[in-house]
Amino acid sequence: MSELTHFDAQGQAHMVNVGQKNSTARRAIAGGRISMLPNTLALIEAGQHAKGDVLGIARIAGIMAAKRTSELIPLCHPIPLTHVAVEFALEASAVTVRATAETVGQTGVEMEALTAVQIALLTIYDMCKAVDKGMVMSEIQLLEKYGGKSGHWVAPSC
Amino acid sequence: MSELTHFDAQGQAHMVNVGQKNSTARRAIAGGRISMLPNTLALIEAGQHAKGDVLGIARIAGIMAAKRTSELIPLCHPIPLTHVAVEFALEASAVTVRATAETVGQTGVEMEALTAVQIALLTIYDMCKAVDKGMVMSEIQLLEKYGGKSGHWVAPSC
Amino acid sequence: MSELTHFDAQGQAHMVNVGQKNSTARRAIAGGRISMLPNTLALIEAGQHAKGDVLGIARIAGIMAAKRTSELIPLCHPIPLTHVAVEFALEASAVTVRATAETVGQTGVEMEALTAVQIALLTIYDMCKAVDKGMVMSEIQLLEKYGGKSGHWVAPSC
Amino acid sequence: MSELTHFDAQGQAHMVNVGQKNSTARRAIAGGRISMLPNTLALIEAGQHAKGDVLGIARIAGIMAAKRTSELIPLCHPIPLTHVAVEFALEASAVTVRATAETVGQTGVEMEALTAVQIALLTIYDMCKAVDKGMVMSEIQLLEKYGGKSGHWVAPSC
Amino acid sequence: MSELTHFDAQGQAHMVNVGQKNSTARRAIAGGRISMLPNTLALIEAGQHAKGDVLGIARIAGIMAAKRTSELIPLCHPIPLTHVAVEFALEASAVTVRATAETVGQTGVEMEALTAVQIALLTIYDMCKAVDKGMVMSEIQLLEKYGGKSGHWVAPSC
Amino acid sequence: MSELTHFDAQGQAHMVNVGQKNSTARRAIAGGRISMLPNTLALIEAGQHAKGDVLGIARIAGIMAAKRTSELIPLCHPIPLTHVAVEFALEASAVTVRATAETVGQTGVEMEALTAVQIALLTIYDMCKAVDKGMVMSEIQLLEKYGGKSGHWVAPSC
Repeated sequence: MSELTHFDAQGQAHMVNVGQKNSTARRAIAGGRISMLPNTLALIEAGQHAKGDVLGIARIAGIMAAKRTSELIPLCHPIPLTHVAVEFALEASAVTVRATAETVGQTGVEMEALTAVQIALLTIYDMCKAVDKGMVMSEIQLLEKYGGKSGHWVAPSC
Repeated sequence: MSELTHFDAQGQAHMVNVGQKNSTARRAIAGGRISMLPNTLALIEAGQHAKGDVLGIARIAGIMAAKRTSELIPLCHPIPLTHVAVEFALEASAVTVRATAETVGQTGVEMEALTAVQIALLTIYDMCKAVDKGMVMSEIQLLEKYGGKSGHWVAPSC
Repeated sequence: MSELTHFDAQGQAHMVNVGQKNSTARRAIAGGRISMLPNTLALIEAGQHAKGDVLGIARIAGIMAAKRTSELIPLCHPIPLTHVAVEFALEASAVTVRATAETVGQTGVEMEALTAVQIALLTIYDMCKAVDKGMVMSEIQLLEKYGGKSGHWVAPSC
Repeated sequence: MSELTHFDAQGQAHMVNVGQKNSTARRAIAGGRISMLPNTLALIEAGQHAKGDVLGIARIAGIMAAKRTSELIPLCHPIPLTHVAVEFALEASAVTVRATAETVGQTGVEMEALTAVQIALLTIYDMCKAVDKGMVMSEIQLLEKYGGKSGHWVAPSC
Repeated sequence: MSELTHFDAQGQAHMVNVGQKNSTARRAIAGGRISMLPNTLALIEAGQHAKGDVLGIARIAGIMAAKRTSELIPLCHPIPLTHVAVEFALEASAVTVRATAETVGQTGVEMEALTAVQIALLTIYDMCKAVDKGMVMSEIQLLEKYGGKSGHWVAPSC
Repeated sequence: MSELTHFDAQGQAHMVNVGQKNSTARRAIAGGRISMLPNTLALIEAGQHAKGDVLGIARIAGIMAAKRTSELIPLCHPIPLTHVAVEFALEASAVTVRATAETVGQTGVEMEALTAVQIALLTIYDMCKAVDKGMVMSEIQLLEKYGGKSGHWVAPSC
């Protein structure tokens, strides 16, 4: 099973050795969405301009979670992130999130960007679940990736 | 904005006071899926029976993450979980995950179940991304919920 | 040195045994302030109404830190907090912060309230240090405390 | 609000991009104090020479907290600290603390030094609160800073 | 494989459901030792009375680690510890450690006591490794256990 | 007490300054064992091939713990690990574990390898304690070390 690099020749999990890889500038962008009732969206939208800033809190949660990715994902390397940003956009009955993570190092930051997206979405869910338990999170994926041996990659669906 | 209970009358975020709520047995079940190339799924399937157990590792990651929910989600209460389980099912070109969390306490465990789902999915992504960067996570939602003032709730889509 | 309860009869540190104490409703309120240049305060004030919400982020940081008090303070007991709130007030050249923590349990929540104050203040410092490195934090203290054997306590200076 | 670098042009919080900054040797020194009853100070002083070493424990707590700064302060970068030291001095009715943090990197270590001070002070409070709840923490500030674009900075009050 | 309770009927790991178990007073005592060169032991012994308190720091590390057991051991339940103590004894060429953990709850605290022992031993190793890399840790085991369905248990070797 | 480098000239603990040390490739290998009843070993062995994979979970726990070493061991530097692997071998009535940690940096990774061993052993204990409380952990030691000023070191007992 050499195709899955997180396993050695005996099929045992390990944290892949990246000590010989070049240190390059790396960036990853991930996205996701949470769909909800129109009324829930209206409450979130109101909070941006006045009281109850759901998205401001979800942004902070996403940024903080990105920094803890290697604690959460068993075989992720600890990475000194140089930049994290989380943006939201409001649609008719959904909020979309887009997270960017960057580092200069020997391994990529896809998991950091995806973790920021997931925890930002979960935070929106948490803050709105009192009025809307049926929210659904979807389209969570890597959108773009720069740096490293595999170079520039863009999601086919983008 | 009293509808969103995570904000006080002034619209400021707080960790809601649950000190007066009854302590009841609570359970939440959440689900999600990650779609992938058939070849990626084949690698995961092979690992269940032989080498490279992706799902075994994702299960552990999900269980461990559930225990850290209150560190990740800003306004979640710390909860002494009494039970966490994570199950997977293989479909044609996707893995579905279902997490159950339980406690006896003053507040629900929806976020714990959802966090287990999200981190289990992210771990699958991490372990397979060397062969399939285009995997997409979706249908992440609360499926069922027992206990507490609101009683039994089932997702409309179930 | 029996006066300092965190040490046993031999003077060795331990986490005090609270297993025999009654479980009571407990609350602690702590306060603090950070003084700054008038221009720094103006930037913070502007952020409340428009862009760059320093205090909203500091509030979240304080609440999240309260939940991690027992990881930071060596001999603190882990406590299932039932409520945390952090409030700010703007003075001529300072921001004051006031944090409330509550639980129902065998030990008090003074340290949780104080930790929320400290990390909220540090977050304000962090976010404004690019324009004002000379900010000073002071008057950090327990203001009030309810519950437990010692009952109601109010800081002499209040 | 471009003056506060933790916000982007739209006023949204982000973890500032430091990927293009030079890696330089950086040092920060922060200070603070906790005032207390003379009897409390006497207990602490006794512990240094015999039983109940309050300051030894507070030093360890401060050093350990410095390593976790980026988990506590939302927009702080994770930093591989190369040195942390925490010193105490006893005054008539107060303990002063002074923490030094160092790294070689793209961003400063002011927050790490300040976090060490805050948690060291809180630990002293925790260990002495059974005899003196009225202790007050103050004068917590950055004292000195070396390295990075802004070079050497000394607090005006020093 | 029903004998190993951390697996369900399908052999999948889960965090065992303890929600139906009685809440009882529980205590566990664990022990261990680290053997070393006589000169290393002499340095540790000197530190107890004067400068360089290795054991004081190892004690704090053990107590703090006990509080984080459920983060480290994948299927451990989070437990509100009510008491933790760590004691050391010096032998001819070894230090022995003994840790006690207590709670009132639905599950035992063996892992908390053992984790305190392990991290206390590791901290001694860390602080002395500059003079003695060959230290060996051994005899790490549960010594005694009270409370819960299985009642009082004493290690056969004790 | 200059021999113990974790203390300064006054005998106060500090995180040693490694800022001037050369960055070199470093590797450490640590080992340990847990002895148990033959029946317990048989259950573990069965799990490798079928249901209840104790060692697979212990491996993940060890790898994840290695990444958190600097949070657990008070004076350890945070280290960006580039590789972690944990292997097990089965003997007549014991499991032996061997952990390798690597980095490119200014300080060694002995503690990371030892922490992986300790937490892997504790996880085996946790998962088998329902059938065998008398398991004993021993022979936990550094086996080999490469890189840094002291160069290649091998345990005398190896």
